[in-house]
Amino acid sequence: MLIFQNENSYDVKGKIEKSGVAILPIGAVEAHGPHLPLGTDNYLAERLAAKVAEKTGAFVLPTLPYGQVWSLKNFPGSINVSNESLIGLLVDIGISLHQQGFSMFVMINGHLGNAVALKEAARKLYSDIPEFKVLYLFYPGVKQITDEVRETQSAHASYFHACEIETSYMLYLAEEFVDMSKAITDIPVIPSSADVTPTPWEEFTRSAVLGDAKLATKEKGEKIISVALENMMALINNMRTAPKQN
Amino acid sequence: MLIFQNENSYDVKGKIEKSGVAILPIGAVEAHGPHLPLGTDNYLAERLAAKVAEKTGAFVLPTLPYGQVWSLKNFPGSINVSNESLIGLLVDIGISLHQQGFSMFVMINGHLGNAVALKEAARKLYSDIPEFKVLYLFYPGVKQITDEVRETQSAHASYFHACEIETSYMLYLAEEFVDMSKAITDIPVIPSSADVTPTPWEEFTRSAVLGDAKLATKEKGEKIISVALENMMALINNMRTAPKQN
Amino acid sequence: MLIFQNENSYDVKGKIEKSGVAILPIGAVEAHGPHLPLGTDNYLAERLAAKVAEKTGAFVLPTLPYGQVWSLKNFPGSINVSNESLIGLLVDIGISLHQQGFSMFVMINGHLGNAVALKEAARKLYSDIPEFKVLYLFYPGVKQITDEVRETQSAHASYFHACEIETSYMLYLAEEFVDMSKAITDIPVIPSSADVTPTPWEEFTRSAVLGDAKLATKEKGEKIISVALENMMALINNMRTAPKQN
Amino acid sequence: MLIFQNENSYDVKGKIEKSGVAILPIGAVEAHGPHLPLGTDNYLAERLAAKVAEKTGAFVLPTLPYGQVWSLKNFPGSINVSNESLIGLLVDIGISLHQQGFSMFVMINGHLGNAVALKEAARKLYSDIPEFKVLYLFYPGVKQITDEVRETQSAHASYFHACEIETSYMLYLAEEFVDMSKAITDIPVIPSSADVTPTPWEEFTRSAVLGDAKLATKEKGEKIISVALENMMALINNMRTAPKQN
Amino acid sequence: MLIFQNENSYDVKGKIEKSGVAILPIGAVEAHGPHLPLGTDNYLAERLAAKVAEKTGAFVLPTLPYGQVWSLKNFPGSINVSNESLIGLLVDIGISLHQQGFSMFVMINGHLGNAVALKEAARKLYSDIPEFKVLYLFYPGVKQITDEVRETQSAHASYFHACEIETSYMLYLAEEFVDMSKAITDIPVIPSSADVTPTPWEEFTRSAVLGDAKLATKEKGEKIISVALENMMALINNMRTAPKQN
Amino acid sequence: MLIFQNENSYDVKGKIEKSGVAILPIGAVEAHGPHLPLGTDNYLAERLAAKVAEKTGAFVLPTLPYGQVWSLKNFPGSINVSNESLIGLLVDIGISLHQQGFSMFVMINGHLGNAVALKEAARKLYSDIPEFKVLYLFYPGVKQITDEVRETQSAHASYFHACEIETSYMLYLAEEFVDMSKAITDIPVIPSSADVTPTPWEEFTRSAVLGDAKLATKEKGEKIISVALENMMALINNMRTAPKQN
Repeated sequence: MLIFQNENSYDVKGKIEKSGVAILPIGAVEAHGPHLPLGTDNYLAERLAAKVAEKTGAFVLPTLPYGQVWSLKNFPGSINVSNESLIGLLVDIGISLHQQGFSMFVMINGHLGNAVALKEAARKLYSDIPEFKVLYLFYPGVKQITDEVRETQSAHASYFHACEIETSYMLYLAEEFVDMSKAITDIPVIPSSADVTPTPWEEFTRSAVLGDAKLATKEKGEKIISVALENMMALINNMRTAPKQN
Repeated sequence: MLIFQNENSYDVKGKIEKSGVAILPIGAVEAHGPHLPLGTDNYLAERLAAKVAEKTGAFVLPTLPYGQVWSLKNFPGSINVSNESLIGLLVDIGISLHQQGFSMFVMINGHLGNAVALKEAARKLYSDIPEFKVLYLFYPGVKQITDEVRETQSAHASYFHACEIETSYMLYLAEEFVDMSKAITDIPVIPSSADVTPTPWEEFTRSAVLGDAKLATKEKGEKIISVALENMMALINNMRTAPKQN
Repeated sequence: MLIFQNENSYDVKGKIEKSGVAILPIGAVEAHGPHLPLGTDNYLAERLAAKVAEKTGAFVLPTLPYGQVWSLKNFPGSINVSNESLIGLLVDIGISLHQQGFSMFVMINGHLGNAVALKEAARKLYSDIPEFKVLYLFYPGVKQITDEVRETQSAHASYFHACEIETSYMLYLAEEFVDMSKAITDIPVIPSSADVTPTPWEEFTRSAVLGDAKLATKEKGEKIISVALENMMALINNMRTAPKQN
Repeated sequence: MLIFQNENSYDVKGKIEKSGVAILPIGAVEAHGPHLPLGTDNYLAERLAAKVAEKTGAFVLPTLPYGQVWSLKNFPGSINVSNESLIGLLVDIGISLHQQGFSMFVMINGHLGNAVALKEAARKLYSDIPEFKVLYLFYPGVKQITDEVRETQSAHASYFHACEIETSYMLYLAEEFVDMSKAITDIPVIPSSADVTPTPWEEFTRSAVLGDAKLATKEKGEKIISVALENMMALINNMRTAPKQN
Repeated sequence: MLIFQNENSYDVKGKIEKSGVAILPIGAVEAHGPHLPLGTDNYLAERLAAKVAEKTGAFVLPTLPYGQVWSLKNFPGSINVSNESLIGLLVDIGISLHQQGFSMFVMINGHLGNAVALKEAARKLYSDIPEFKVLYLFYPGVKQITDEVRETQSAHASYFHACEIETSYMLYLAEEFVDMSKAITDIPVIPSSADVTPTPWEEFTRSAVLGDAKLATKEKGEKIISVALENMMALINNMRTAPKQN
Repeated sequence: MLIFQNENSYDVKGKIEKSGVAILPIGAVEAHGPHLPLGTDNYLAERLAAKVAEKTGAFVLPTLPYGQVWSLKNFPGSINVSNESLIGLLVDIGISLHQQGFSMFVMINGHLGNAVALKEAARKLYSDIPEFKVLYLFYPGVKQITDEVRETQSAHASYFHACEIETSYMLYLAEEFVDMSKAITDIPVIPSSADVTPTPWEEFTRSAVLGDAKLATKEKGEKIISVALENMMALINNMRTAPKQN
């Protein structure tokens, strides 16, 4: 695997030209219940990035381990950075990558809270450098396989957290950081107002677990992650070959 | 060593209260000649932070691996982020750490280019939260020992780069990333104007090495780093006990 | 219905105290195919707001008719404003409403592209004035009824535009602006990459219609809108009675 | 009259080319005494814009109904937005209009407090797109006719509010929103310091009426507004024909 | 006269308490025709401030010699700074003055182009520190005396420049910088559009003189300036004694 | 000496072309003990600039007399402006100077606290206008001569203040503002933490004097300043002849 920061400046120029693709894992430091570490989203992003890089010949950049953690920022251990700060940093990184000769910048995201910042950063880069390809990937195309694999209903239509699903991801990708003996079942009733008014999660959960973490297995994780990985690779490879439409 | 992102949210609260100190390693991705990796400053910051954390009972946060690399941004492999972006992110992190119960935030910096942003972020935090102790450490108090240890004159009065000194640091702290067989001697003449007008380094060096990297040894690194570590620990411990003067 | 801008300054204070709730319709000027007007999202937001206001005793503020139209900004007639500008304005309005004595600020949104700005503005207001209740409503809770009502598949999992659904909304809420004789069927293949990389819509549609507008009927619109309205009213009424949890 | 948001995207392109001019009515929600509605400045801007559009073949954009209301922001019913937010939004709108093919952007302003933001936005647009013609119009050239028409002295050299003059405007342009039975006479002594230090109007008036609203008549309004309209049309038509001097 | 920057830090505290008032002269570097220097507005502000300070016991701060010069920025010798920069600096200065113990901050302005920035800065200070008195003075209350004194009509209703009037000011306040042998008569026709669209002055004048500078005399200057000075002193003294109304 | 603001707009264009260089003296208003005035840094910058201008044929701009005074902002008489405000203003000035035809912009700085802002402003100008030469000069190259001249050790490795050295500067350059009868000896122990954590100077000094001001002499000042001046002139002249390397 091509680890960008382990390269030296003399050799890297040619390798960038050959590879063309830089992957930035981006996660967060955030409460994930009693059984998962604060760095869960960082480990997931990092391991996913490594797998994608290996199969696509892309470079992996060092992980950006701080993310937008508004909803859980009052839980022990969470570190929150604002969308503004995150967007600024990501745009700067993107501009540098383009100047260094990369043609594609892939952000592999392990934390849903980052989605707004990643999309906005991508649009700003698109506006400044239309020919530069920028992707933001958060487990693309796993809805169907997730529905098949899961044994419990999701606590929320669009987000999941420290639950059967995310714990399974960790068991598959970073098992050494999971303590299943501490896994709990905690399926909160998320009020419908949570989608329409600012709602820090302490209003409906004490554990920050949104589901039945006890049902997590490595196999479930593998099934979903495999689909996510295939989709990521397909998206990257398609974009590599397809000319930018602008 | 207390690795913050490996903690879980249930246990971490009590541990924060007990430790009180969070260390953020911060470096950069930057050209460091043919023999040192692009991530040199990240590895140095990370390894220093680990040593300090072990001896002080502080938590180590995940490394922030992107820094202000204006001077070398046109060299292959460098990734540059602006002071504005960096300051924004650091202030956000500091605010979260304070809300999480930390009483001290120690930035261990591996890259001189970050100095302005770190100091400015610390001042902004001081203005908002005067009782929160914020340190920015870049090899404090090593001037004398460095002068004793070095065999060649420094190419510049205040900065050093990929040279006898920094390569020695790496040999001591992260030897596995150094390729001494590629080390070179390249002592550029830095024009005095470089201190008074914007001067990207390609104006005076092709290698980005400012000195004789061949003279680097693990022992030299250990001598200087030991002094730096002692000073860092003394600064942290003094600040821990001394009441904030505001 | 209480139209805020038709009140005079002498009487309004008491009425604000009695009503407590201000509704801001917010839409956009945006291409909506050959059969719907550029102001479709404004008319929808305005008419929805009027209905909600009538039944809840809320005040209706003048419509904010400019929204974030990134995706369609290159289509004839679209006017795009940035998230930054929109957030700034919405936060200012929210602060004034709170100072005027309102306890709740309800943004009724007719344009999906505004969602990020509305949520961010709501969070900023929550951070500054935690006791002030801020809602952002975009057809809440209509997924099931929409699935029942629609005859064609949606062209995209999360957005719809100028199609069977939105045209039905207009037929129910603002029929006088619809020209069904010009309605077209245009179901584009939206590439999966559109969810992961900046993709102006001209890359996959010429009409800006995402579906079969010919199938739109007033009755379909009424069915879905009725559910949306019930949900909006329930959300507002629940929040009115429930004490803010902070 | 060409109402922009009632056009459809298919037809609008050709019409823009033919018309060339977009008019944005901009007002405010602001206390206007007991006899005039909070939306007075919006109604005035809107009705003026309609008249100008009809005679010049310009498009009328939807009204921007929120303005800078610093001086009266503590009066019941006022909603204040900052110059920064307003400038941002207006510049965004202007850029879009230019991209859509308009050659002239006319802001018809009903609220003096917006004057700074409009001028600044126009200058920013001028700097970015020098060939784009941007006008900001606030009853141009009515000094003489106003002096002739008015029966009472103005309470202030440069602003008027809810008084003989503005009430006459409303009687002529939007009579249905005026309640002359509530009109009052209230000629405050405005201290000379009000021009040289921040002075919220509650320091010198309780009613927000600056004059004798009882003397207002439709005829007075018509006389002044007719001059204003003629001047607006002349300014627009002259600018249309005259080549931009840059 | 109390020149602030000539005081030492030991004595100044007591003197600030006694005086209470700080005067900031603010001007610009701007083209003023062939007979007046680029620093005209700086000299005027500085000399006015000295006279006011002498009679009121106020401190004079060092002159801020850079101003907003949008209209004349393309004329030889003009230096333009943006409203944003100017506002930022003035707010910073105001905050410091308040922290230093001043109760009043008087900006004596020699350049009309600064008016927007000064007013905005004053409002920001008012919002942050309501009890701090901030004045922005630009020849207050001289309209009548100017009309009496002048022999030629003004070229524009609200601004004058390097003309009979401003040249007379300089002859009275800073005669040593005036070269009357070069004074010219140049009364441009300023198009009415100049008040409603961004209009750099090169569109209507080559000289930057707006009037008949040849008619300027020291006596005319003295007459008008004397009134301005009296008004300034009255405003300052009234505000000193009157309690702030908030 | 060419004083920019004393030129008139008619003659200045040709003179700018001939001279090519604009010097901006920049200082601060800051506590300097009992014997030196608050404006010490302004007087030093101004007098240095005059000497440099005379020998190089450069223009001297009016002094910017407000600087970043974070460390001493709580001392009587200090006025602090933020880095952001200062950078904004300096960039604006630089852009204007370039548009006016200057090829070099030399900031002669009398206050160390401005160093960050000056360097950042220079880099922003370099990024926007690479061919425009921007210098920031703070007593360049005086380390050796200072070490020779001084009789007491410096209280700090990188800064000096109101001490033997700076007082000597003033005695040589602006003797009329120095009151040696009030000079004191006050050599504080500056804690090493002052270099690594925000440390307002009141934490270690009451006088703001960092050394033995009594030892100051005009001769010492002359010796050091002469070297500084030679270096400044050499830097300017070299940069004048050398083509910009970009």
